[in-house]
Amino acid sequence: MTIDYDRLVPDRLKEYDLPVLLELAAGLKNRMLDVCAKSGGHIGALHVVFDTPDDHIVWDVGHQAYAHKLLTGRFGNFETLRQKGGVSGFLNRSESPYDAFGAGHASTSISAAQGMAEAFRHAGQDRWAIAVIGDGSLTGGLAFEALNQVGYRQSPVLIIFNDNGLSIDENVGALNERFVAARQAGDATPMAQFFESFSLAYDGFHDGHDLPFLLTKLSEIKRARKRPLVLHLVTQKGKGYEPAEREPIKFHGLGPFDLASGKVVQKPAPPSYTEIFAATLIDLAKRDPKLFAVTAAMPSGTGLRAFARALPEQFYDVGIAEQHAVLMAAGMATQGARPMVAIYSTFLQRAYDQIIHDVCIQNLPVAFALDRGGLVGNDGATHQGVFDFSYLRCLPNMVVMAPKDENEFQHMVYTAHHYQQGPIAFRYPRGPGWGVAMDGDLRMLPIGKGELLLDTDKPELTLFAIGQTVMPSLRAAERLSQEGIKVCVVNARFVKPLDTALVDYTVKRSVKVITVEENAAMGGFGSAVLEYLSAASYAYEIKRLAVPDHFIEHATQAEQREECGLDEASIYQEAMAFLRRDHALTSLSMR
Amino acid sequence: MTIDYDRLVPDRLKEYDLPVLLELAAGLKNRMLDVCAKSGGHIGALHVVFDTPDDHIVWDVGHQAYAHKLLTGRFGNFETLRQKGGVSGFLNRSESPYDAFGAGHASTSISAAQGMAEAFRHAGQDRWAIAVIGDGSLTGGLAFEALNQVGYRQSPVLIIFNDNGLSIDENVGALNERFVAARQAGDATPMAQFFESFSLAYDGFHDGHDLPFLLTKLSEIKRARKRPLVLHLVTQKGKGYEPAEREPIKFHGLGPFDLASGKVVQKPAPPSYTEIFAATLIDLAKRDPKLFAVTAAMPSGTGLRAFARALPEQFYDVGIAEQHAVLMAAGMATQGARPMVAIYSTFLQRAYDQIIHDVCIQNLPVAFALDRGGLVGNDGATHQGVFDFSYLRCLPNMVVMAPKDENEFQHMVYTAHHYQQGPIAFRYPRGPGWGVAMDGDLRMLPIGKGELLLDTDKPELTLFAIGQTVMPSLRAAERLSQEGIKVCVVNARFVKPLDTALVDYTVKRSVKVITVEENAAMGGFGSAVLEYLSAASYAYEIKRLAVPDHFIEHATQAEQREECGLDEASIYQEAMAFLRRDHALTSLSMR
Repeated sequence: MTIDYDRLVPDRLKEYDLPVLLELAAGLKNRMLDVCAKSGGHIGALHVVFDTPDDHIVWDVGHQAYAHKLLTGRFGNFETLRQKGGVSGFLNRSESPYDAFGAGHASTSISAAQGMAEAFRHAGQDRWAIAVIGDGSLTGGLAFEALNQVGYRQSPVLIIFNDNGLSIDENVGALNERFVAARQAGDATPMAQFFESFSLAYDGFHDGHDLPFLLTKLSEIKRARKRPLVLHLVTQKGKGYEPAEREPIKFHGLGPFDLASGKVVQKPAPPSYTEIFAATLIDLAKRDPKLFAVTAAMPSGTGLRAFARALPEQFYDVGIAEQHAVLMAAGMATQGARPMVAIYSTFLQRAYDQIIHDVCIQNLPVAFALDRGGLVGNDGATHQGVFDFSYLRCLPNMVVMAPKDENEFQHMVYTAHHYQQGPIAFRYPRGPGWGVAMDGDLRMLPIGKGELLLDTDKPELTLFAIGQTVMPSLRAAERLSQEGIKVCVVNARFVKPLDTALVDYTVKRSVKVITVEENAAMGGFGSAVLEYLSAASYAYEIKRLAVPDHFIEHATQAEQREECGLDEASIYQEAMAFLRRDHALTSLSMR
Repeated sequence: MTIDYDRLVPDRLKEYDLPVLLELAAGLKNRMLDVCAKSGGHIGALHVVFDTPDDHIVWDVGHQAYAHKLLTGRFGNFETLRQKGGVSGFLNRSESPYDAFGAGHASTSISAAQGMAEAFRHAGQDRWAIAVIGDGSLTGGLAFEALNQVGYRQSPVLIIFNDNGLSIDENVGALNERFVAARQAGDATPMAQFFESFSLAYDGFHDGHDLPFLLTKLSEIKRARKRPLVLHLVTQKGKGYEPAEREPIKFHGLGPFDLASGKVVQKPAPPSYTEIFAATLIDLAKRDPKLFAVTAAMPSGTGLRAFARALPEQFYDVGIAEQHAVLMAAGMATQGARPMVAIYSTFLQRAYDQIIHDVCIQNLPVAFALDRGGLVGNDGATHQGVFDFSYLRCLPNMVVMAPKDENEFQHMVYTAHHYQQGPIAFRYPRGPGWGVAMDGDLRMLPIGKGELLLDTDKPELTLFAIGQTVMPSLRAAERLSQEGIKVCVVNARFVKPLDTALVDYTVKRSVKVITVEENAAMGGFGSAVLEYLSAASYAYEIKRLAVPDHFIEHATQAEQREECGLDEASIYQEAMAFLRRDHALTSLSMR
């Protein structure tokens, strides 16, 4: 029997015998290596034994599930992975009925599967809810909450504990250390005891690459009475691909690389914001032993791996535990320490209550570095950092900044570290800077002060931009100027406190204002400008350019910026339309 | 030696011998019963043995710490508890140096104490960081994240596991069940194994009321080398006060009651929103087996205890685990179930990422009932529900409502349950309704439609109010009408989608608009109206009345509404000033 890869769906898998399945596993590995050089293990076995999509497999963090995607109808168009209109990099309910639950953030699978299992039970349906969770995701408090509840209600969730010994970065945490030691000693007792604390039966540990064993084991589980069970499978990430076996962290979600050598294709010249953040923070921390860098399983993504190497004593990676990261930093700040919490904008959503309840109410000087602010590109909807202006701006005591370029950014890192009066956050984009010259000495930016970047006599319009959108606004303004249209451009720098003096100055000279930001249109930077203007006593006309009120799917950042009307060309066109008072063309969708 | 209660501070405690300390413990109990009929246990011992405030005691959820407050300089003014300007109901760093860390939300103590312990270590300071955490708080994922990190780093945090067998409501969760069973069997092994999973030494369990033992034990710990340790003390909530021993849940944070009988003073006539929510939901759930009520350790506070009694199969209390509550509900919703998640506005902050990542991105029909929306009274800053309009409105797919009165509220509960298209949230105030007549039949409110409550020819002003502020706005408008000022009043009902047709209709007739809401001024309902108006092509003048940009401390709700300018008198005055164009009086503070 030969494998028809282009028509791969789980029903077809059931027709295959073991040799064919083994061939398929190898084939899938090649396919994934072709596309992204990742490998899967035990995933086919789940589809063979269980009746997907009626039985629901919930993957924890979707990118563990590439093999699942190949097996469920997305083999043929897998080349389109993470491209606009193509296969999503994560699981997506709207993409396939086999994607039972979407996932881009970690530690969610057990909770979602319990919800499904309880719904099946109430509906009297004999269906399975299966959560596949990695060891990294098990550091998130959310996963513990779920274990505690699944055990309490004895919800019949099959929990596949896919233990490959690392998450995005090395795992941290006492639990992981104990599990690693126990695995190496060949002793399952610590795992069994841990899961039994939550009244969960434990079966393990087993080789997650042993397909014949897995088929037998899963079939036994399926035949037995439904009950909650933790099946512990040990897998090796990148198994079967030599460079990945040697250096697994590097191969997790990196850009294009050469398949033969495994060498990552070199990046273009301007350093990334992430790199500048790390370099600046290392400099600051060398001079200030009270500076502590705190992150949550993102030492590579935030650039802090270099910090950890240079200053291990001043570095805290708490694993996938954003809540704890923020709250521990708050505790440090009560003692005069200067914690800098570096977490992606999208993941900081998970620490929202700690930001409000533990940091802002107590007005503690915790600095927040929000990498991946704004549109993030091919990670798509689950990773967009486009709500932070809105969710941070409404909080008393919070300062919110965003840099126009990488030079201003290094001063912003400096400013955040030296600001003593309370919490301060700055968000910056994924990707490279603009290639501008970098100042040698760092300085404090005056809090709440923006800058007038482009001034002119009797302007017709002021572009009030912040962060990533300042440069395209400036370029759009230059095009407008070339056509004889007089435009001012403001780099706002601060969402909060807003530079109201600068608003006053510009609006008194030009009634028309366009705000530009990579944040949700509702409640963001433009709304801050609008709120101030509405309380002022002079005339104004405002248009707000921002991310519209729907989720932005995976594509390149350039495509997303064009889609949202935040690139240079769109800003130019919107300005032209606004000056002509062409309302039909220019109204921002408000719903 | 006699006890000088009015000068009680920890240094004085150290002068007392055991008989005096025992007398003091009894005295404190009486004092607390006088004020609020609560009792403490082992709290004095910590202050006697450790050198507070240099050593830091972090209490998990501040209201466990009334005895601590009495011992640390707040004996004399304890009558002012939870009153405006008086002693806070929770811990408060600005109130006392002995309050090492503020706390109104649960599960935070271990993280904060780790931050302190690490800061002490780096600074070379020989000080203690002590976390006192109840068994209820241990269901929160945040606490697990912290245990995992304290064990990993071996941060020398003394964790007092204060095990009294209940949180606000009965504890739920497998871990708690196992601990209760083990305690009853007199076997500490399950606890020891659990904490050892996190590489934490465990010492227990011990009688938390045995003062001589505690003094000895804590002294031993203090003399030994600093290391992380879980000291498990079993206490009995309400110990020494007979009615509380019998019925502990009722006595947790209730209103005034008669000390002799323990009877709660009867509430006034109009039923509370909480009661109406529960009654309505029970009716709906009886007719719809797919309706599931989900809460997070708030069955009493949300009124769902009655639901749990009536329909136990359709009720889910997941303990202090808001993240899991929302995510499990999302899993249910994928199966056509109709989960109604009832969580206080302030606690829902903890599930913000689940609302975005798991509910809104997937556009799942999860209904959110946000009790304690707006100003909450004497619980103070940590419990204010004044950010939800801002943090929910910016999310695509989300519908956000607030009712003008308890009759509209019951239709809103009905509407939320029957709305199929995606997530929907409604927030309602703490406390009683207005005593309005209740309709017999429930109906769908049209999504995104408000109502014109008070209309007039050629109005000078329209009050655009939502939720709790509609009635005072209406009354203020009636006063204005009596003075010959023509005013319209709109009940907006929906923050999102906004009733833009109604905005158009009213603003075309009266240029001046005042928005009124019990939410932060930044990014809230008024900003939604403003965002829409700014894109419209006609003239308008707007004033936004909302909660100013600072945290509102404990006081009565009436006092807080007056402080925020959201009571009838303030609305009236603001309207008068606005009509006179008296800008000096009327500008909303924007910073």
